[in-house]
Amino acid sequence: MAEPLRIALAGLGTVGAGVIRLVEANAALIARRAGRPLQITAVSARDRNKDRGVDLSRYAWVDDMVILGERDDVDVVVELVGGSDGPALALARTTFEAGKSLVTANKAMIAHHGLELAAKAEAAKVGLKFEAAVAGGIPVIKGLREGAAANEIERVYGILNGTCNFILSTMEDTGRDFGDVLAEAQAKGYAEADPAFDIEGTDAAHKLSILAAISFGSQVDFGSVDTAGITRLRAADIAQADALGYVIRLIGMADTETVDGTNRLFQRVQPHLVPFDHPLAHVDGATNAVVAEGNFSGRLLFQGAGAGDGPTASAVVADLIDLARGEIGAPFSVPVAELEAMPRAETGHRLGRSYIRFMVADRPGVLAEITAALRDAGVSIESLIQKGRAGDAGAVMVSMVTHEGPESAVTEAIRLLDGSDSLTEPPLVMHLLGN
Amino acid sequence: MAEPLRIALAGLGTVGAGVIRLVEANAALIARRAGRPLQITAVSARDRNKDRGVDLSRYAWVDDMVILGERDDVDVVVELVGGSDGPALALARTTFEAGKSLVTANKAMIAHHGLELAAKAEAAKVGLKFEAAVAGGIPVIKGLREGAAANEIERVYGILNGTCNFILSTMEDTGRDFGDVLAEAQAKGYAEADPAFDIEGTDAAHKLSILAAISFGSQVDFGSVDTAGITRLRAADIAQADALGYVIRLIGMADTETVDGTNRLFQRVQPHLVPFDHPLAHVDGATNAVVAEGNFSGRLLFQGAGAGDGPTASAVVADLIDLARGEIGAPFSVPVAELEAMPRAETGHRLGRSYIRFMVADRPGVLAEITAALRDAGVSIESLIQKGRAGDAGAVMVSMVTHEGPESAVTEAIRLLDGSDSLTEPPLVMHLLGN
Repeated sequence: MAEPLRIALAGLGTVGAGVIRLVEANAALIARRAGRPLQITAVSARDRNKDRGVDLSRYAWVDDMVILGERDDVDVVVELVGGSDGPALALARTTFEAGKSLVTANKAMIAHHGLELAAKAEAAKVGLKFEAAVAGGIPVIKGLREGAAANEIERVYGILNGTCNFILSTMEDTGRDFGDVLAEAQAKGYAEADPAFDIEGTDAAHKLSILAAISFGSQVDFGSVDTAGITRLRAADIAQADALGYVIRLIGMADTETVDGTNRLFQRVQPHLVPFDHPLAHVDGATNAVVAEGNFSGRLLFQGAGAGDGPTASAVVADLIDLARGEIGAPFSVPVAELEAMPRAETGHRLGRSYIRFMVADRPGVLAEITAALRDAGVSIESLIQKGRAGDAGAVMVSMVTHEGPESAVTEAIRLLDGSDSLTEPPLVMHLLGN
Repeated sequence: MAEPLRIALAGLGTVGAGVIRLVEANAALIARRAGRPLQITAVSARDRNKDRGVDLSRYAWVDDMVILGERDDVDVVVELVGGSDGPALALARTTFEAGKSLVTANKAMIAHHGLELAAKAEAAKVGLKFEAAVAGGIPVIKGLREGAAANEIERVYGILNGTCNFILSTMEDTGRDFGDVLAEAQAKGYAEADPAFDIEGTDAAHKLSILAAISFGSQVDFGSVDTAGITRLRAADIAQADALGYVIRLIGMADTETVDGTNRLFQRVQPHLVPFDHPLAHVDGATNAVVAEGNFSGRLLFQGAGAGDGPTASAVVADLIDLARGEIGAPFSVPVAELEAMPRAETGHRLGRSYIRFMVADRPGVLAEITAALRDAGVSIESLIQKGRAGDAGAVMVSMVTHEGPESAVTEAIRLLDGSDSLTEPPLVMHLLGN
């Protein structure tokens, strides 16, 4: 058997410990499949003495993780520290400078610095792999880079944040409100003490920007993701969607359009209404799922656990096996120099159907005011429901689904109502996921 | 840019023409992703003059496809002829003898001769790739070989035949009977004029045997797949399943068990009752889906179009892009010599729940006879429904779902009733898909 692939592990949280457990538990079969053993040689983390439930005595302990890649007994560094900058980024840079490959689960770092790092990896002729950065244990980066490589990807979208999906499907099952379910998710460890990254859509936006770059050969552009979270959703929205034949899911979606010869990139994270007969409507709990629509493959769906130490470790080690097999490849499927800088798409002319929910004062004339604004903006209403008091003192919920039309019309209608004292809070707009 | 990967195409049916269309339509992006162009240089099929809707004038026409691999202008042969033996097998052998790689969509050939061919490819240090042989455009071979490579796969199962799934989901939607829906499927081109390969489960068994080998590192063993098709299903079975909270899907399933230190391989293709809350219950029409359960990844689901020229061409060209990138790899994930010869698992002691349907004479005492046999065999009944006349003159349908118990008990109960003149046809047993 060939020489082992020697691995340094930076970051020994739950995922790091999971990687150690996996490499040990499945050592024999991994060696058979990779053609050589995977051997962890060095580890580094902030606190040497913390009990992580794994035996670290066989590995060299390194206090300064940033120099892990410089060790002679290391072929590849696994970065599980997290954070877009700081020690993770420093470690990535020194690793490539030392001519070693990097495997990371760090979506924030790849979303913010993926281009720089891919260029450094390419220059050093080493690998930069980040399967674990998107959708946990699901091999969707590989699915797009390789499995769907023959296709022009027309659209990529999916459920990219397990915390949000857990909250939404629990709200759906129980009829409870957002804050209540969030508190339960935090108590159970499904949501962080500071949940903002998840529930405001940032985490999903990181992942979407990575998927988009691979799908469209565009430069990673986290900054241009139009991002909304799930914090404004009410139990009544979910009940309303259900009555109309939809569930609500936080969807990250990207596609491209060509305007005057220039390719433009559309990236949006937003709660969507997903029709019952769409596969994503049946993705519950902390599960993730990604759909890629190829011009020859048609719709491909990849689904599985979006987080957790086991699934994330599975993705990290899959990358290590690829490296052990000598499969380096371009991190974003094509060489960095060929990735296209795509300006942000203008969304106004996009066609679609929308759900719009107003919370309004309970007094005469309010419905006339709203419907007049919609009429003036050219928004055509397919169905409208006014419910009695929605629990808020004096506020009534008016929700509707529009016919297909330009998004700009909906935006304009909302603008016309801006500042109206009939509205007790800003309207909530969610798009309907088309088939 | 590097030299092109030069391709010979054998077989110019719908998939072959699809490969040509794909390679032409997506040439630029494929070259960027593969690092070099894909160039079809030679083609071969039975009839040179048939109109296939693609321009063949740029490619050398070769009458004898078996010598395609021997041409100097060919690096890789794509075999789309079909058939487990005959010209396809001869072509595969000569291709490896000539030291060239082979890409094939031929599930029958891989199921029957995969070991021999993988050994020949390995000896010649060339590639044997067959993503298109299983589940059409879904990159499930790659998902198992590489994406899930870090895992011990505990179970692999899925919907592997689009024709059967189209028939079953249409029966479900319309309440019509098998023969009627089959005739429609044939008229629409979703089923072959001779549909036996599909509806009797053989096609799914071919695919399952390939998935099992990759998942478990076992030798491909098509012969040991326990195979049943969907021909005996009645509309009433589907209605009955629905009332109990299930849909019926033809499921191919494989796992392993260790008895007295020997690993044994279990492979079965059979219609199953799939609970509504299982992702496979929502796979409709000609769609395929494969679930792999890894010991770290948890449940991974791969779903997409199981057939069709576009999706199948997408999988063929993905394999070609891998080869263009220099990624050859072991066809079954580990070298042929390391694939384990696993005896067939004995199914009797397997635990599960079953649906059993009897068609019985409409006269007193029949139900007592059946329930006595079940009692004597130790089968515990969870629910039982006797329906009035099911359309057959004088026959009544009795269907039941058992509690969990050994499969041998159900087999024994059926044996006890063998030859009873109360039964108007042999009982139909289907297993319930556990979560």
